[in-house]
Amino acid sequence: MKGSVGQVKTQFFEFNDPKNPLRLSLGTELDRFTLAYETYGEMDAGRSNAILVFHAMTGSQHAAGINTDVPGLDGRWTDELHEGWWDGFIGPGKALDTRKYCVICANYLGGCYGSTGPASINPKTGLRWGPAFPPIRMRDIVDSQIRLLDHLGIKKLHAVLGGSIGGYLSLSLATRYPDRVRHVIPIGSGIETTHLHRIMNFEQITAIEGDPSFRGGNYYDGSLPHIGLALARRIAHKTFVSITALSERARSEVVASKPPHGWYQMNHPVESYMLHQGEKFVQRFDANTYLRIVDAWQWFDLLKEADAGDHHELFARCRDQEYLVFSIDSDLSFYPEEQAKMVHALKKAKVPVMWITVHSDKGHDSFLLEPRLYTPHLAHALDRR
Amino acid sequence: MKGSVGQVKTQFFEFNDPKNPLRLSLGTELDRFTLAYETYGEMDAGRSNAILVFHAMTGSQHAAGINTDVPGLDGRWTDELHEGWWDGFIGPGKALDTRKYCVICANYLGGCYGSTGPASINPKTGLRWGPAFPPIRMRDIVDSQIRLLDHLGIKKLHAVLGGSIGGYLSLSLATRYPDRVRHVIPIGSGIETTHLHRIMNFEQITAIEGDPSFRGGNYYDGSLPHIGLALARRIAHKTFVSITALSERARSEVVASKPPHGWYQMNHPVESYMLHQGEKFVQRFDANTYLRIVDAWQWFDLLKEADAGDHHELFARCRDQEYLVFSIDSDLSFYPEEQAKMVHALKKAKVPVMWITVHSDKGHDSFLLEPRLYTPHLAHALDRR
Repeated sequence: MKGSVGQVKTQFFEFNDPKNPLRLSLGTELDRFTLAYETYGEMDAGRSNAILVFHAMTGSQHAAGINTDVPGLDGRWTDELHEGWWDGFIGPGKALDTRKYCVICANYLGGCYGSTGPASINPKTGLRWGPAFPPIRMRDIVDSQIRLLDHLGIKKLHAVLGGSIGGYLSLSLATRYPDRVRHVIPIGSGIETTHLHRIMNFEQITAIEGDPSFRGGNYYDGSLPHIGLALARRIAHKTFVSITALSERARSEVVASKPPHGWYQMNHPVESYMLHQGEKFVQRFDANTYLRIVDAWQWFDLLKEADAGDHHELFARCRDQEYLVFSIDSDLSFYPEEQAKMVHALKKAKVPVMWITVHSDKGHDSFLLEPRLYTPHLAHALDRR
Repeated sequence: MKGSVGQVKTQFFEFNDPKNPLRLSLGTELDRFTLAYETYGEMDAGRSNAILVFHAMTGSQHAAGINTDVPGLDGRWTDELHEGWWDGFIGPGKALDTRKYCVICANYLGGCYGSTGPASINPKTGLRWGPAFPPIRMRDIVDSQIRLLDHLGIKKLHAVLGGSIGGYLSLSLATRYPDRVRHVIPIGSGIETTHLHRIMNFEQITAIEGDPSFRGGNYYDGSLPHIGLALARRIAHKTFVSITALSERARSEVVASKPPHGWYQMNHPVESYMLHQGEKFVQRFDANTYLRIVDAWQWFDLLKEADAGDHHELFARCRDQEYLVFSIDSDLSFYPEEQAKMVHALKKAKVPVMWITVHSDKGHDSFLLEPRLYTPHLAHALDRR
C-alpha cells in the first residue's frame, strides 16, 4: 500500500567554518552559507541507507509530502509548491521507499528557496547579495551538499538521483566522490551541455538581462524583471513538454483581449497558455537565481570539474558504482541520444549500467509526472546492495 | 551555360487611387502606398510569362543579380543584401530561366526595404508611420501585389513561388485569385501556423516589445531596440538551420571576453556565433516591420482569408492550377509533416500536385542555399504550359 510522507518541514543546515570554507570554482570562499533541505524516512544505524536527490533547474528541496510554508522567501513559496515535486516517487511503498531509505533533497546553493543565494542577506554586509553573489558551477552545488552529508554523518550514499540537470549533478558527485555513492541514477539527462542547450540558455540569459527592471540584478527594492524572466521560462518550458500535450492542455484557455506587452494582441489559446506559464513562474522564482543556474549549465564541463582527461579516465573511477540511466522517448530538452552517449562512455569504461527508455507523450517532464513508468526499475535497482 | 542577371535596380510602384483604395483586412484603407520591386527577364507580348516570387520573412525585393543601393533605407541596405537572395535560382539557364520568364519580386507591404511600412513617411502627416502603421495580414500583402500585377498588365501569372511564409502567400494568392496563376510552388512551407510557430513567434514578440528602447514602436529618433530584435532573430535563426551545421560554422568564432548584456560571460563559439547573427541582423532590419510580419504569421488563417469552410472547398477552386510542393527533410521550422498536410488536402480536392523531398543537412535554409536540389524539378514544372 503506497502512502504519503505527510506534512514535512524544511530544515536549514547552517555551515559556518572559517577554517575550512567552501571554496567555489571561481575562487570565492564561503565560510558561511545555508542549505535548505528536507529528509523523508529514517536513517539506519550505519547511516548507510541515505539517498540524495538533486532537484532540477527550478525545483526546490521540497520533494515529497506537504509543506505549506518555508519562511523568509518573499512570497515565492506559492501554492503550486506545497506538494513535493516528486511526491509520486517518494514515500512508503513508492519507488524511493521511505520505509527502507532516508531520502534527502537540498535546494541548490545559489537557489531561492532557503539556501544561500542572490536574494539572501550577505552576513558580511547585512545587505542582500544581489549581483555580488558569486557565479556558481555545478561542482559547487555538489560540494555544498557534500558538506551537508558530512554534517549528517553520511559517509556513503546508497544512491544519488536526478532528472534533467539534476542528472549532471549526480554524475558530478559520482565522478568526483566515487567512494561516496553506490547507485547513480540520471533521468532524462546527459554528460554535457549540448549546442541546442547553449543556444536556448543564451536566449534566456538575454531575456532576463535585457529586462529594464533587471538593472544588473539590483532589483529587489523596485519592480521585478517579470517580463524577462517570464520570457526565459517560456523559452525553456516549450522544451520540457510535448507540443501536442501542451496544445491539448491549452485548449480551454481563454485568450486575453488585452495585449500583454504593448501592441501585439494574442489570438490563440496556446499563446494565453504560455503567457500564463510565464506569469505563474515569476511569482515563485528569483531572476538572479535563474541566471546563476543557467550560467552553471552553460559552463558545465564534467571532465574539467572532475579533472579527467577523457570520459574513459573519468568513468573508470566509477566501476564500483551501479548506473541506471533513463531516457524518455519524447524528450525535447535532453534527447535520447544524450543518454546514448552517456551509456556508451560508461560501458567503454566498464562501469555496470542498465539503460531504460520509457515511452511517454509528456516529453521531458515525464520524469516529474509519471512515476509508474519509472517505479519498478527504480525500486528494483535500489534494492540491490 | 548559366549566367547572372547582372546589375539590377529596385523599381517603385506608386499606388495612388483614392477611388479604389487598398482595403486592409482590419479595415484601414490605403489610397497611397509604394511597393519596391524588381524584375528579371523580359515580359512576352501576351504578358503570359510572368513568375511572381514571394520572399520570406526578412527577405527583400532583391532576389537576383547585384544591387548595391536602394535609396532611403537609413543604412539598412547592408553589404550582405547586395547579392540577390535567390541569385542561384534566377537567371539565364537557371531554375527560373530569365531567357524564358519575367520574374518579379516585391517587398512586402509593411516591409522595410522600400515598400510602405512603419519606417516610411505617412503622406497624410509628413511623419513616420511608426506604431500607427496598421496591422497587416497575409492577404493584405497578396492584395497589394495584385495591384502591382494589374499595374504591370499581368492578367495571369505563369507561376507563383515562395519559401517559408512565402509559401503561405503563394497559397493565399492561388486560392483567392485562382484564375490568376497556373503553377503554384510552395517550398518548405505549410497551410497553417503551427503551435510551435505560435510559441516561438510569441517569444520573439515579447523580446521586441520588452526592449526598453522599443518604446511602443516610437524609436526612430532615439536608440533602436537592437537587443530585443537581435534576441528575436536568434530565437528564429536556430530553427532555420541545422544545429549540427550551425555548430560547424561556429567553430572558428572567437568567444568575446566582454559580457554582451551585463553579467553573463559567454564561454563557447556557438554563443558568439549566435550573438553575431543577431547583431548583423539588426543592422539591416526594422523592428516594427519584424513585429508586423510575425503578427501576420500569428493571425494567418488560409480558410478565413479565402472565405472557405474547409480545405476541400478552398482547394477545389484550384483544379486548373498545378502544384509542386517541396519538403526539406531536415527542416526544423516547417517540418515535412506540414507539407504532408498540404499535399493531402490538395489531393483530396483533386488538384494536380507533385511532392518532392530534398535531403539536405542545411535545414529550412536549404531553399536559399542549395539551388541544385530544386532546379531540375522547378525547371521541368515551369516548362509545362
